[in-house]
Amino acid sequence: MATKNVAIIGSGNWGSAIARIVGRTTKANPDKYGERVNMWVFEETVNGRKLSEIINTDHENVKYLPGKKLPENVFAVTDVVETCKDADILIFVIPHQFVTRVSKQLVGKIKPDAIGLSLIKGLSCVPSDGIKLVSDEIKEILKIDVSVLMGANIAPEVANDNYCEATIGTKDKQKNGALLKTLFHTDFFRINVVADTEAVELCGALKNVVACAAGFSDGLGYGDNTKAAIIRLGMMEIVRFVTQFYPGAQLSTFFESCGLADLVTTCYGGRNRRVCEAYVKSDKPLAVLEKEMLNGQSAQGPLTADEVFELLRKTNSLEKYPLFVAVKRICKGELKAKDLIDCLRTHPEYT
Amino acid sequence: MATKNVAIIGSGNWGSAIARIVGRTTKANPDKYGERVNMWVFEETVNGRKLSEIINTDHENVKYLPGKKLPENVFAVTDVVETCKDADILIFVIPHQFVTRVSKQLVGKIKPDAIGLSLIKGLSCVPSDGIKLVSDEIKEILKIDVSVLMGANIAPEVANDNYCEATIGTKDKQKNGALLKTLFHTDFFRINVVADTEAVELCGALKNVVACAAGFSDGLGYGDNTKAAIIRLGMMEIVRFVTQFYPGAQLSTFFESCGLADLVTTCYGGRNRRVCEAYVKSDKPLAVLEKEMLNGQSAQGPLTADEVFELLRKTNSLEKYPLFVAVKRICKGELKAKDLIDCLRTHPEYT
Repeated sequence: MATKNVAIIGSGNWGSAIARIVGRTTKANPDKYGERVNMWVFEETVNGRKLSEIINTDHENVKYLPGKKLPENVFAVTDVVETCKDADILIFVIPHQFVTRVSKQLVGKIKPDAIGLSLIKGLSCVPSDGIKLVSDEIKEILKIDVSVLMGANIAPEVANDNYCEATIGTKDKQKNGALLKTLFHTDFFRINVVADTEAVELCGALKNVVACAAGFSDGLGYGDNTKAAIIRLGMMEIVRFVTQFYPGAQLSTFFESCGLADLVTTCYGGRNRRVCEAYVKSDKPLAVLEKEMLNGQSAQGPLTADEVFELLRKTNSLEKYPLFVAVKRICKGELKAKDLIDCLRTHPEYT
Repeated sequence: MATKNVAIIGSGNWGSAIARIVGRTTKANPDKYGERVNMWVFEETVNGRKLSEIINTDHENVKYLPGKKLPENVFAVTDVVETCKDADILIFVIPHQFVTRVSKQLVGKIKPDAIGLSLIKGLSCVPSDGIKLVSDEIKEILKIDVSVLMGANIAPEVANDNYCEATIGTKDKQKNGALLKTLFHTDFFRINVVADTEAVELCGALKNVVACAAGFSDGLGYGDNTKAAIIRLGMMEIVRFVTQFYPGAQLSTFFESCGLADLVTTCYGGRNRRVCEAYVKSDKPLAVLEKEMLNGQSAQGPLTADEVFELLRKTNSLEKYPLFVAVKRICKGELKAKDLIDCLRTHPEYT
């Protein structure tokens, strides 16, 4: 079998952390992968030098992952087409609002049998009647198979080689699953592969909505019992949502790192939780708090809640998702945070 | 249908918190329950007065739940036979080391068609070849049906009417399930009933073992990713254990409050986590730390790990439960806490 070339589309905090892993595994498996890993870098100037040049000379992304060396077989490339043209495996790890634009740039410029892997948590920003998975967005534009990798993976901890797990969801477990697992599975980053691609991806997007509810609970000073109930009911709404809109997933998939583990981490740490706690305590609008607290990043929970709400409204499903709906309404100021519990009390989970 | 009399065996922190709920629900449902709720109190002297007298006069358990009123239909009774003799529903909420002794005192002294409900987390202290569920211990001694109630229920928060959930496991969902649900389901304490009694009970016992591992991780300064991986692998060992030794449980039961929610709460708060974190940081023996930190209470995780280990050893199953086994060995000083991750790296969950 010919070796596979790998390209990483994105070089932020998470992309750089992943480049550390992929650079090592490609080098360690010369029978499977081409050694050179191209990483697309959106060019900018840092301390008077070009970021791409810094990465290729000093092997460090000083802006987004300072203090951590990148393997020397990872090369910063500033042109996304150039980055990807010889790649057999395209790893997407850019903010989800750039997915459409970047994918369109690649149309006709990549290998026809390349496969994609999305590490992007969130839903695609497509003005539409419902929601769209980021992986589907890429798939539709590039006509390639797209798998996903999700899990409880805080980037600085991954970069620090702390032990953690992740889940790969791929329709082709046998072939692509094996190929992708070897690309990520290391002593400190343990991979499980499942076939429920959509479930894996939706867990990664919907957990942020649950984290908002956890943040409200923290802001209101409720205790551990209440937070545990919120996390649990949130998990059940995630399961219900996947079952309703993307049927066929195994319940066991929600016990993978992408499900249970990522949800818990996000509801205890995580920026959505933090911003929503502050929202309750400060009375400032969410947008202001995001600006003040997140250093240019956005909280995806409120956005996702909004998109999910639209789909639920159009499918007459609102009453089956009291937590998702309450988060949307609280974020929009249509409901007070203290009304959250009243929304949960008659949850359809209590049968 | 004749009304059912309720007795509570135990009056510690958790027993008293539960008495607040049961006192209210029995009063609110006079068609279902006798109004008078007997609560067995182990007599002691507090500020020169008998505790039972204080409870019956001031309606407050000043020793174990100070500052919270008990409903006036809850009566402290110091003789356990007297407490239970007219009861149709016996709620067991005593430390698990007293279960055998107390149950034996009741033999032949209770209504033959009474039903039991155990709120006791942990395994029964029976010198035996394996483990024994507390509910089975009661069942065998008293020859009555015994259900269980477990969940993410930190007693002071329940006493404070913070919103929370619990799971009742009962073989007879139709009849006993309905009867017990009404006895506990309030606006702030939401009950789900499932048929997987053993799974519900084992979740309540085994989570403490997982919490020890979470404590080690915290003590070692590992981050959120690692802790999430530990919680997840712990959950999978709980599922595996139940499946191996008490087969037949639904996977969905582990998503109830007794499963996911209680595990998460215990691994973030909880005394097992706390003591095990200190064990890593201080180098003092666990027994010393328990004495110093737990105010007379014991950490059940190390005990349970020990009992579980024996069963796994005898059934040649050790290699299927690397987390449970590591916790036992670290608690016993046979392994260093920092070796925990090495034990998890080749976990059978990574297929």
